[in-house]
Amino acid sequence: MNMVELIRKKRRGEPLTKEEIGGFIAGYTRGDIPDYQASALLMAICFRGMDARETADLTLAMADSGDRIDLSAVRGVKVDKHSTGGVGDKISFVVAPLVAAAGIPVAKMSGRGLGHTGGTIDKLESIPGFRTELPNEQFLDNVNRYGMAIVGQTGNLAPADKKLYALRDVTGTVDSIPLIASSVMSKKIASGADCIVLDVKTGSGAFMKTAAEARLLAEAMVAIGKSLGRRTVAVISDMNEPLGREIGNANEIREAIATLRGEGPADIAAISLALASHMAVLGGAFPDYGAAHERLAAMLASGEALAVFRRFVLAQGGDAACVDRPELLPQAKRHIDVRAAAAGYVAGIDAEAVGLAAMALGAGRRRKDDSVDHAAGVTLLRKTGERVEAGEPLCVMHTNGDNADEAARLLERAYTIGADRPAPREYILDTVR
Amino acid sequence: MNMVELIRKKRRGEPLTKEEIGGFIAGYTRGDIPDYQASALLMAICFRGMDARETADLTLAMADSGDRIDLSAVRGVKVDKHSTGGVGDKISFVVAPLVAAAGIPVAKMSGRGLGHTGGTIDKLESIPGFRTELPNEQFLDNVNRYGMAIVGQTGNLAPADKKLYALRDVTGTVDSIPLIASSVMSKKIASGADCIVLDVKTGSGAFMKTAAEARLLAEAMVAIGKSLGRRTVAVISDMNEPLGREIGNANEIREAIATLRGEGPADIAAISLALASHMAVLGGAFPDYGAAHERLAAMLASGEALAVFRRFVLAQGGDAACVDRPELLPQAKRHIDVRAAAAGYVAGIDAEAVGLAAMALGAGRRRKDDSVDHAAGVTLLRKTGERVEAGEPLCVMHTNGDNADEAARLLERAYTIGADRPAPREYILDTVR
Repeated sequence: MNMVELIRKKRRGEPLTKEEIGGFIAGYTRGDIPDYQASALLMAICFRGMDARETADLTLAMADSGDRIDLSAVRGVKVDKHSTGGVGDKISFVVAPLVAAAGIPVAKMSGRGLGHTGGTIDKLESIPGFRTELPNEQFLDNVNRYGMAIVGQTGNLAPADKKLYALRDVTGTVDSIPLIASSVMSKKIASGADCIVLDVKTGSGAFMKTAAEARLLAEAMVAIGKSLGRRTVAVISDMNEPLGREIGNANEIREAIATLRGEGPADIAAISLALASHMAVLGGAFPDYGAAHERLAAMLASGEALAVFRRFVLAQGGDAACVDRPELLPQAKRHIDVRAAAAGYVAGIDAEAVGLAAMALGAGRRRKDDSVDHAAGVTLLRKTGERVEAGEPLCVMHTNGDNADEAARLLERAYTIGADRPAPREYILDTVR
Repeated sequence: MNMVELIRKKRRGEPLTKEEIGGFIAGYTRGDIPDYQASALLMAICFRGMDARETADLTLAMADSGDRIDLSAVRGVKVDKHSTGGVGDKISFVVAPLVAAAGIPVAKMSGRGLGHTGGTIDKLESIPGFRTELPNEQFLDNVNRYGMAIVGQTGNLAPADKKLYALRDVTGTVDSIPLIASSVMSKKIASGADCIVLDVKTGSGAFMKTAAEARLLAEAMVAIGKSLGRRTVAVISDMNEPLGREIGNANEIREAIATLRGEGPADIAAISLALASHMAVLGGAFPDYGAAHERLAAMLASGEALAVFRRFVLAQGGDAACVDRPELLPQAKRHIDVRAAAAGYVAGIDAEAVGLAAMALGAGRRRKDDSVDHAAGVTLLRKTGERVEAGEPLCVMHTNGDNADEAARLLERAYTIGADRPAPREYILDTVR
């Protein structure tokens, strides 16, 4: 394969063939194609785009670049869920037991990753005793027995995506719809999903700043799913302020449990129910979204989903008492209020800044080998549209360290207080299927 | 400097500051900025371009990345000439003695390079005894004494350009007007030129296929020259067939000498006189182009330019007898005709294919350490517009090897024979100043 000719072809705006894309991914994964040629191609893709067929070919080539998880031992239709990421996103911990309660198996492998808080695995590890490493047989057996299991990612999943993502990160080529879409979908395909439900976040705290951009990304991912025989639905949800009121590892588990008890914040409950309803329909548990939504809302209210979560925690060695008494989850030594300078209505909360504050408090990782403080985080006492008086607390910092000053400055700046009550926002903006 | 932000800035189409461009070139030359970031930036430049100020800043940063040749010991205005390259281009060997005869000093450092034939230095070395390595003092002294000297390039000229060009070559980012223009001009600036005359080739045998593209490149280079205080003129000349009738190393010296005797082909004489006239005007020898052209044409006819060339050859150790009896230059053992299959008029000669044939015969280098056969080459007996009968020779291959079959096939394909005589072409298409 002539890599220079391939780069020039994309530079001219011509679509690459399946063989060219496959050859590039295989050669790059092996190390035969150097980074400098890959980055030139990626930049040309940023300018020229990729059509639906090319994007699907790229996705499949990346999914096939390493191991594929074999979920054939799990009974039923495997429906996976993915979020493009936001601040305070604990939706998975509500969705998974909810769909499991409806009979859809959840066999999830998750990562730790870098970010404002830890990843799914870090959050679960804030439950005392919880084990995220299970032998593969036990993992599959737990799914069949209890409806769900979540473990740390093992194996060499989509190494081409991993290598390309690292390169994009340092070459200004991250924000490209076909590259983002194929990156997300290649991992879902390699993870063994039959159907996929995507939560595409949009707003100031999300990668996609506008609903229009989010819709383009959603459409690209749904098209890939269709091309590759995976029924896929994407929900576009608001991320103009953090989700729920809790940011942190234990904090977010605590809020997820509250939601499973029917006591959670409205945004978490609404988005969780929407995603779970799509998953349950794709999995064949209900004939349509309306029926699924009605039944799942009842399962949330009745505690059926909470019961699945409790069994899941127990099955992976966790202290199930925490599920009924969330105050047993790790607590920080110090709780420090951040107070409003003036009275008014909260006009907005910059999710990015809240995330950075949580990271400064120790909840997240800046580097791969940083450790995560499970107890660190932020509780938002006021959210957008709520009234606050001067001197009243806006939020509380949870910390074991002495790094609260930077976080406090970030949180003060994160809040915008205005004279008028802002119009309420929709949680779900759009659905693509 | 945040290289990712710099790449993203250019990706968004924003101009880079002088400091950003300087920082990139310095960092890349030192090896602090990796190839994969440089190639992503280059591709973004291919799509977004650079404005005149950015292009001048890039040129200066590359010129300043290594040594600068000090020509202050040479008396007079130093006017340099550059050709964007074509097949059979022996213009420099006519232009240099012509402007030297008019009192403009020529202090030229040239390379060997890769290509269809050798570079300027290889061509000169086809003259028995000719030395292209002179101590710097002798080089400068020869220029002052004989009007001209040409030596092999020494020192570390524009290493940033060398490194970037090698990267562009393997990342599909060669064809970009600001990148080509800054590459050419950075070397001219580093070589110590006060004024610059550019020969921008256009046509099937040139890098710029259309006159419009060639004009854009010419304008970009002239703008750089102006920005950096070097008076610059660009001539756009036709390269739809090889220049003159001789391709090869000794072959081209032979044809240059014929032109200096007033017996050369019309295209070589016309383009040489045009370029030399611009150089002589920039150097202050004549008040305007018309006066320069008239006087230089007379110097060509009178043998004054030939006399300068003879002294130049002698001063660098070459056998001056070759200048008067060019048949003493290296001759190949075998001369093989390529004949016309049918009668008609030559409608065109693909310069690229003729160049490849010359290379196949041994005249050029494929790799840096290949040796060049000074005697190998091609003589075009028929050029565009000339009549040929079936079975008559179109051209002659000069070879010492047994590789004539490939060359013959290339040459047969290079010629297009038609029923009608094509309209004659202009040698000079445009001038930019």
